[in-house]
Amino acid sequence: MIKVGIVGGTGYTGVELLRLLALHPEVELTAITSRGEAGQAVSALYPNLRGYVDIAFSEPSTAVLSTCDVVFFATPNGIAMKQVPELLAAGVRVIDLAADFRIKDPVEWAKWYGMEHSCPHLLTEAVYGLPEVNREAIKGARLVANPGCYPTSVQLGFLPLINAGVIATDALVADVKSGASGAGRKAEIGTLMAEAGESFKAYGVAGHRHLPEIKQGLALAHGAPVGLTFVPHLLPMIRGIHSTLYARLIKPVDDLQALFEAAYADEPFVDVMPAGSLPETRSVRGANTCRLAVYQPQGGDTVVILSVIDNLVKGAAGQAVQNMNLMFGFDERMGLAHIGLLP
Amino acid sequence: MIKVGIVGGTGYTGVELLRLLALHPEVELTAITSRGEAGQAVSALYPNLRGYVDIAFSEPSTAVLSTCDVVFFATPNGIAMKQVPELLAAGVRVIDLAADFRIKDPVEWAKWYGMEHSCPHLLTEAVYGLPEVNREAIKGARLVANPGCYPTSVQLGFLPLINAGVIATDALVADVKSGASGAGRKAEIGTLMAEAGESFKAYGVAGHRHLPEIKQGLALAHGAPVGLTFVPHLLPMIRGIHSTLYARLIKPVDDLQALFEAAYADEPFVDVMPAGSLPETRSVRGANTCRLAVYQPQGGDTVVILSVIDNLVKGAAGQAVQNMNLMFGFDERMGLAHIGLLP
Amino acid sequence: MIKVGIVGGTGYTGVELLRLLALHPEVELTAITSRGEAGQAVSALYPNLRGYVDIAFSEPSTAVLSTCDVVFFATPNGIAMKQVPELLAAGVRVIDLAADFRIKDPVEWAKWYGMEHSCPHLLTEAVYGLPEVNREAIKGARLVANPGCYPTSVQLGFLPLINAGVIATDALVADVKSGASGAGRKAEIGTLMAEAGESFKAYGVAGHRHLPEIKQGLALAHGAPVGLTFVPHLLPMIRGIHSTLYARLIKPVDDLQALFEAAYADEPFVDVMPAGSLPETRSVRGANTCRLAVYQPQGGDTVVILSVIDNLVKGAAGQAVQNMNLMFGFDERMGLAHIGLLP
Amino acid sequence: MIKVGIVGGTGYTGVELLRLLALHPEVELTAITSRGEAGQAVSALYPNLRGYVDIAFSEPSTAVLSTCDVVFFATPNGIAMKQVPELLAAGVRVIDLAADFRIKDPVEWAKWYGMEHSCPHLLTEAVYGLPEVNREAIKGARLVANPGCYPTSVQLGFLPLINAGVIATDALVADVKSGASGAGRKAEIGTLMAEAGESFKAYGVAGHRHLPEIKQGLALAHGAPVGLTFVPHLLPMIRGIHSTLYARLIKPVDDLQALFEAAYADEPFVDVMPAGSLPETRSVRGANTCRLAVYQPQGGDTVVILSVIDNLVKGAAGQAVQNMNLMFGFDERMGLAHIGLLP
Repeated sequence: MIKVGIVGGTGYTGVELLRLLALHPEVELTAITSRGEAGQAVSALYPNLRGYVDIAFSEPSTAVLSTCDVVFFATPNGIAMKQVPELLAAGVRVIDLAADFRIKDPVEWAKWYGMEHSCPHLLTEAVYGLPEVNREAIKGARLVANPGCYPTSVQLGFLPLINAGVIATDALVADVKSGASGAGRKAEIGTLMAEAGESFKAYGVAGHRHLPEIKQGLALAHGAPVGLTFVPHLLPMIRGIHSTLYARLIKPVDDLQALFEAAYADEPFVDVMPAGSLPETRSVRGANTCRLAVYQPQGGDTVVILSVIDNLVKGAAGQAVQNMNLMFGFDERMGLAHIGLLP
Repeated sequence: MIKVGIVGGTGYTGVELLRLLALHPEVELTAITSRGEAGQAVSALYPNLRGYVDIAFSEPSTAVLSTCDVVFFATPNGIAMKQVPELLAAGVRVIDLAADFRIKDPVEWAKWYGMEHSCPHLLTEAVYGLPEVNREAIKGARLVANPGCYPTSVQLGFLPLINAGVIATDALVADVKSGASGAGRKAEIGTLMAEAGESFKAYGVAGHRHLPEIKQGLALAHGAPVGLTFVPHLLPMIRGIHSTLYARLIKPVDDLQALFEAAYADEPFVDVMPAGSLPETRSVRGANTCRLAVYQPQGGDTVVILSVIDNLVKGAAGQAVQNMNLMFGFDERMGLAHIGLLP
Repeated sequence: MIKVGIVGGTGYTGVELLRLLALHPEVELTAITSRGEAGQAVSALYPNLRGYVDIAFSEPSTAVLSTCDVVFFATPNGIAMKQVPELLAAGVRVIDLAADFRIKDPVEWAKWYGMEHSCPHLLTEAVYGLPEVNREAIKGARLVANPGCYPTSVQLGFLPLINAGVIATDALVADVKSGASGAGRKAEIGTLMAEAGESFKAYGVAGHRHLPEIKQGLALAHGAPVGLTFVPHLLPMIRGIHSTLYARLIKPVDDLQALFEAAYADEPFVDVMPAGSLPETRSVRGANTCRLAVYQPQGGDTVVILSVIDNLVKGAAGQAVQNMNLMFGFDERMGLAHIGLLP
Repeated sequence: MIKVGIVGGTGYTGVELLRLLALHPEVELTAITSRGEAGQAVSALYPNLRGYVDIAFSEPSTAVLSTCDVVFFATPNGIAMKQVPELLAAGVRVIDLAADFRIKDPVEWAKWYGMEHSCPHLLTEAVYGLPEVNREAIKGARLVANPGCYPTSVQLGFLPLINAGVIATDALVADVKSGASGAGRKAEIGTLMAEAGESFKAYGVAGHRHLPEIKQGLALAHGAPVGLTFVPHLLPMIRGIHSTLYARLIKPVDDLQALFEAAYADEPFVDVMPAGSLPETRSVRGANTCRLAVYQPQGGDTVVILSVIDNLVKGAAGQAVQNMNLMFGFDERMGLAHIGLLP
């Protein structure tokens, strides 16, 4: 059993971490901190956890967190970077579910996140926690930057084609759609039921923080910068991301389906569906799986990839637990055998 | 490990049984039958099961089903009663998720279900599978009639008051609301997204099949017939039942909250929430829990009970697995440690 | 043409008033005030009004509002009572869509609304704007208290039975359900899409502000106090209220259907549906109609009334326009010929 | 007043036609035919029409329809083409809301619609009813082919750029999303609430019937064939289409916003929103408007156009009424002054 702490456990990624960790056989929940809710039973805020999580939120305390083997940050951007150095110094390993350590370039980070980075020296050390790309590095990491939800879905879709060198990388298109839980548990008018229900719209068309993260990941695979148009949309539902990806083939590919199947043959949490499949977000609701399908409509030179994840699981808390499993030598799938809730 | 068969595995209770049984440590799935889908991989119809359920639907075959220790019927009403006698004769135990064995009186059954009962002699033997009422009988049962979804929610709400003899039983009111999955996976106009979405209505006001089932259960507890007005409604969502129950106190009760807490103190799947709580259906989404709250508004003599379940879990497949656990001497909670998916 | 002002036009009742008034042939929109949005084009906040409403929000100004023939208050509770005396003095007639003038007893009002009433002398003069009850008084009123959404739906359902003297009035039950727009356009966690979507719950069970309003209206019809249990619920949708009402008959009624049809024979906005109907909220989406159905299940002595309205139309803005039409001698239906948007 | 008939009035485009025509000042509804529902009051099937539409469905009868000035076909594909010749011969003008006359090439039509065309000679005469393109031809048309919902949304988005000759037309991308009402009022499992709710997926990726229609329209504007990848998706909501369109600039454009504003300056039903706007489908719910926004993310050479319509209004019934107005010399906006229902 390892001792686990969660900083900022009141948001949706926090409650989702609790749902997964409460049933993880190797985890002992040591502390769940929240300034605003300190003293309140976790299950009073999240009744679904009644009978499974019996502790209360506590004030953030480095002393307590320093006794943990690993600490998850489920905080707004800019919090983790201030507390991580002290925890690392105390020998605690850290998984940050926010964006503080995702972008390697501190200037780029500051541009998109609107603040100076407080510990740029850790950006190099931090391992980008996409196991399908960085599995070995994650195993030995002290600090893991858990990927964003859109970036997980988009990168897993494009990478097999980029790695194979068969598509033009100057004009990729990612048309992505997310459920409202991606906006977090914040009192805002825009994501009210009466605003976001029974309607659909794009947002962040001029520029979204996940754009540089995706471009960084794809560029690393490609060995050169890539061009990407990234348009996120808000779905009138709660959980789920569907990415529809468009790329132009520059080399003939005998069998796109086989290319994808080979790329993910050994991956426990990436499921290349049979040719002709139409992945539904509900098929991964509550599950840590990314399901993919690939098409070449009318035999033209445009490839279309469909990629679905649960934004709170493979797009956040589930991937974080997957990273924890890797870091501590557990079976990568431990505590993650959740079948998608369908219907 | 016990061998388990499912007859009629293509509906929502079928896929939900599979979701639960696929991860049950003592279960080996032997056969999932479907006339319409025989030969097709189960996971082709339900992609959420990819990687967890690897068998195909098969033609219904008594020979195969007779090798099982237990067979679940997830069929339309009127199917199980024709096949159960043969299976029982072969030593197979049966859990019927349909309504064939819920009503003890075959005349009443025929009136509400529009057909003659084909094996009325089994109605007496069949045990009504509400563990909170019939736990001991279920353990030894050959044939369990798994309760309806509304009846589970309504009975668990009213029973503590009826058993305590503190309410008038001549004019109970149950105003119940269900998600659209309760209507099953059937091609019907009334439950299309474009019909049932963003709207709300009552149905079956003049009479609904769950009325006699509930009245039978409450009368048994009361020792005399009860009067009940039962109005079901269709919610613009998928999973979840919320029952709002009204009764008039005829004796003063010092502490209604304590009465409910005592009634369910030892129940693993009934959660009496703290006074003042407002149970949400999402707190039990995917979980086998019934959550209750009790109110006495403005200190008057009307008691209001709020009762939520997931209609496909505690209202169907989860309760069936709970019954199976009891019948085979497993821990009653085995395979049912699913935390409600919130948000 | 009359000159119309709206105070507090940024909420949902405000935008709904604008939708209706923009096409009203006898209305000239003079001012729409909002402290927070002053200077911004109305259609920038509400793009559905582009091309129909061309003015901007303005600072609240008594000078400007005093030039209007009628001013609607679509403000939070407690605002109108401070501004109404001055407007009345200036000869402006007022329709308050908030609750400031709905309760006749200032002590009761203060108890439920948590503040002292600032002009209790106007409570007697104010006319409760339910046209089906107070049509003649509304015509001559200077100040109309537009009813609450639940109270409109519940009173229209119970009144025919109370007026006929055929039901017990000591234990009425109103189980009511509302879409999320009833909570208004406020940044609150509880009505986020990710909180209120795909789930259902009761709220305000211990006591809700619409309870005294309904009891006042029913008591007035009955000539004596009534007993009412009132349980509101939050629907995972945007618009619509469905009230399910329960009462016990104390006198035999030959034909409940005929009783209701007679009660509303001349009402332009109350539709008694044929026997056996199941009113859907979508049938009145965007329309100023209340649709009713009445049942006597299994021929017992419990009557069930189903009553649906659009909470923003007949439950707020539409009824306000209906009142305006009456006050200014227009056809009561003018500007209100909107057919429910179905599907 | 003109006499109007509707063939096949029981589907969603039928009821939407009725909602619009019932309040049209120059229309007299003469006949609404339906084989399946003949004899039933229209308002029994569609209670929102109670008080507005008082006639019953009738058996299809050429004799009756021949007395009409115009007949709308709101039938499945393949019906209109069999009945239109006789009506035209009788001097009746026809607006077909199905696809029978949309594709000019009968071979292409047969390929996508799976049947031979029964009156290919009318394909040349039929006018494609997109008023923004064919206004003058529509005025004189005997037979109008009302455009498909996706094609309306996609063409209005791409046309200004194609007409200006500033984009590459070999690799256009249209990522389109539609509410479930687009699938019609048919008993099918795939569009059940419990299947299509709270989930999102693509469909028809390999090929969709609206693809040739869009390509035909764009090719006509371009004067040469165009390449288009068209991926439709199903939204968990009822009404609304959102098209996200991607094209590569091949010539510098000073001011894309101005280009779009100029293109639609005189159009009553196309609204180019201010720069930076994010059109929401709810802003056009129930309205005959197409709202557009145009972006050039990060100043690159990819243009993104956002285009929203209500699939049942500008995408079907509303556009049909707009065409009728043109054909009979009425104000093009007559009967179409419906403000989007928001929220």
